Amino acid sequence: MTLKLDRIFYPRPRRLQAVVAASSLALLAAQPPATAAADELRGTGDLGVVIERASGRVAVVDTSAREVLERIEGLGDLSHASVKFARDGRFAFIFGRDGGLSRVDLLSGEITHRIIQSGNSIGGAISQDGSLVAVANYEPGGVRVFDSQTLEPVAEFPALYEDKNGEEQRSRVVGLVDAPGNRFVYSLFDAGEIRVADMNREPGAAPPENGKAAFDVTRFTDIGKKPYDALIGPDGRYYIAGLFGEDGLAMLDLWHPEDGVKRILPDYGRGEARLPVYKMPHLEGWTMAGRQAFFPAVGRHEVLVADTADWSLADRIAVHGQPIFVMSRPDKRQLWVNFAHPDNDVVQVIDTEKREVVATLSPGEAVLHMEFSPKGEQVWVSARDSNRVTVYDTRTLEEIARLESESPSGIFFTHRAHRIGL
Amino acid sequence: MTLKLDRIFYPRPRRLQAVVAASSLALLAAQPPATAAADELRGTGDLGVVIERASGRVAVVDTSAREVLERIEGLGDLSHASVKFARDGRFAFIFGRDGGLSRVDLLSGEITHRIIQSGNSIGGAISQDGSLVAVANYEPGGVRVFDSQTLEPVAEFPALYEDKNGEEQRSRVVGLVDAPGNRFVYSLFDAGEIRVADMNREPGAAPPENGKAAFDVTRFTDIGKKPYDALIGPDGRYYIAGLFGEDGLAMLDLWHPEDGVKRILPDYGRGEARLPVYKMPHLEGWTMAGRQAFFPAVGRHEVLVADTADWSLADRIAVHGQPIFVMSRPDKRQLWVNFAHPDNDVVQVIDTEKREVVATLSPGEAVLHMEFSPKGEQVWVSARDSNRVTVYDTRTLEEIARLESESPSGIFFTHRAHRIGL
Repeated sequence: MTLKLDRIFYPRPRRLQAVVAASSLALLAAQPPATAAADELRGTGDLGVVIERASGRVAVVDTSAREVLERIEGLGDLSHASVKFARDGRFAFIFGRDGGLSRVDLLSGEITHRIIQSGNSIGGAISQDGSLVAVANYEPGGVRVFDSQTLEPVAEFPALYEDKNGEEQRSRVVGLVDAPGNRFVYSLFDAGEIRVADMNREPGAAPPENGKAAFDVTRFTDIGKKPYDALIGPDGRYYIAGLFGEDGLAMLDLWHPEDGVKRILPDYGRGEARLPVYKMPHLEGWTMAGRQAFFPAVGRHEVLVADTADWSLADRIAVHGQPIFVMSRPDKRQLWVNFAHPDNDVVQVIDTEKREVVATLSPGEAVLHMEFSPKGEQVWVSARDSNRVTVYDTRTLEEIARLESESPSGIFFTHRAHRIGL
Repeated sequence: MTLKLDRIFYPRPRRLQAVVAASSLALLAAQPPATAAADELRGTGDLGVVIERASGRVAVVDTSAREVLERIEGLGDLSHASVKFARDGRFAFIFGRDGGLSRVDLLSGEITHRIIQSGNSIGGAISQDGSLVAVANYEPGGVRVFDSQTLEPVAEFPALYEDKNGEEQRSRVVGLVDAPGNRFVYSLFDAGEIRVADMNREPGAAPPENGKAAFDVTRFTDIGKKPYDALIGPDGRYYIAGLFGEDGLAMLDLWHPEDGVKRILPDYGRGEARLPVYKMPHLEGWTMAGRQAFFPAVGRHEVLVADTADWSLADRIAVHGQPIFVMSRPDKRQLWVNFAHPDNDVVQVIDTEKREVVATLSPGEAVLHMEFSPKGEQVWVSARDSNRVTVYDTRTLEEIARLESESPSGIFFTHRAHRIGL
């Protein structure tokens, strides 16, 4: 494992309003023209970003007008990319698979800063106070933390552990989230650990020097084999990691770290799969609604319901395929579910009270992600192989808009800036 | 009761960057200069508004820099004023006690539209889809609904009912909130009713003519005497009205309107007061945290805890005075409580798990309101008679900023645009 910690700054922010790859000109010709006049005042509360993974760019979208405002190119490898937003809603941080971390200005369409901060990364988080951006890295394994204004390094947590031969290794890091109290929580895939980094510093403490500031990190060891993803609940209290190497889930109550990590839902995982697992489900989309938590079964055509009072399995809801994202409409009345190949041309809507599927929709080929508007009246669905994003009215389940987009994957709206763990 | 439905438009939006009433020049001299260059791009996610009630103006604040950006004057009688935000976070709707409804641009500092839509009003709401603004009126009693872009009238619901003599009257309207499904819910103080207006219209329906469009309104009668305020939970499911004329609370489950309105917490109200009631507590600040709901006792030095499974009283927490607002930090770990006269120079912090007071703070004289930053790391507290807003770090409970402000009352941050019922 080589350390590739080169930092590449692009000193000249680039305006990228209408730069379109030649190969996609035909596709994009049918689009409405970009309407963002970059010097015009506008609010950022109804903006969002769609990852166009094949082209290394993002589309900046307006959820009021339901249209693409502009495209920002030059973001590197955006397979499995994710996005966080600054607390002002203006700047987005794009985490690329290639270790790229880009800070883009949604108003001007510029990349204000871009660094390659590792060789392989898997998502990031922004601190509660908005001052810090953290990235979970596979290679070299660890977490790197940057100033959210400048992308200057603030801290590095190398995720060191001793392997079974007593040798020091760096673990790949997954499931990085922000938690209340300006903390970051993450899991070590190779070490089977959860760690909590406290980013608070004493008033008057010396400024960090190139990532050498000291921060407290709490280790929770032996939490289970190969945590591969994690979520934190909307209150920022429960951090739950999925395990690739064994069944069950690892849960840390951040109000009571002294109680350690507990195993919940002991049957959950690949062990219960009756079918080959095409894709491990995403945990981010998990939904807690009152005392119920809804989540995708692994390898089974089911959405599972847990009782959060004791985290026991309360119900199984039959669905169309192997679920990937199980996402709740903000009022918790509906769940929208997408599926793994070969059932990935369908989205199903579940009534959380009846606990049954009430609609089956066909938004296109290879449905990868869904994002609700903040109050839930609309949902945007990306269909990668149909090169489109479809917007539905969640009350009528009617299509209300369709946006052309080249291989769209993740969709992220700016209200995430104001939610714990998003 | 006279109908005063004059609409007054101010056709020339006014730039009001540095207009300061002569009487307040001395006070404001010590302020940092306004830093908002009105033509500069900026995000709106970290903006907010502080009502300066004595001066008929609002201060636009930046929660990242923790400073006042500018002041907007000419907003009329702002006693008991409240604020809602457009879904883009750029425009704020200011509801004045005098029936004034103003739409202000937080970026330019302009009042874009202003109307006097009734003789006496008590708050408003913005629809789930952001297209409509509704105002609850005392005089003439009813709800008026406006286009959120233009403030042109869209609908009027006069709140008509038959009094005990069989005569038709217009009731004063209170507790107006938005609910999922593009509905408005409100209570009729004089009629003892809750009503639900469904603002959805058939596709292709004719545009409304001067408020004459037809919308469905559902009536719930005999809900209890004199509902005086109401709240809707964060999921938009439960609408709960406080009753001034009898004990208990009236609850409507919007998922099951067919079940009608039920009485919950039958002992809650003035009947249990052991002390003279200096001020009826506000319901907006009520807090639901998991299975617990926390709310201010009426006339007693207590915060009450209800079990939301059956809405029974679970606990009473002794506090410093008669509570007015009981507001939850977004992670639900803390409650911040302010009090009625003569204890209104104190704020107390309650640990929701221990159910006890863990801190008592003195932010100044006549503490009227509190607002948390969206992720809860800071809370802003207005002290009217000390002419200041104090910002606390909610982790350390230390004061981290102090802003001079003339008679500040309500504080409202733009992330409310993206929360149901706020």
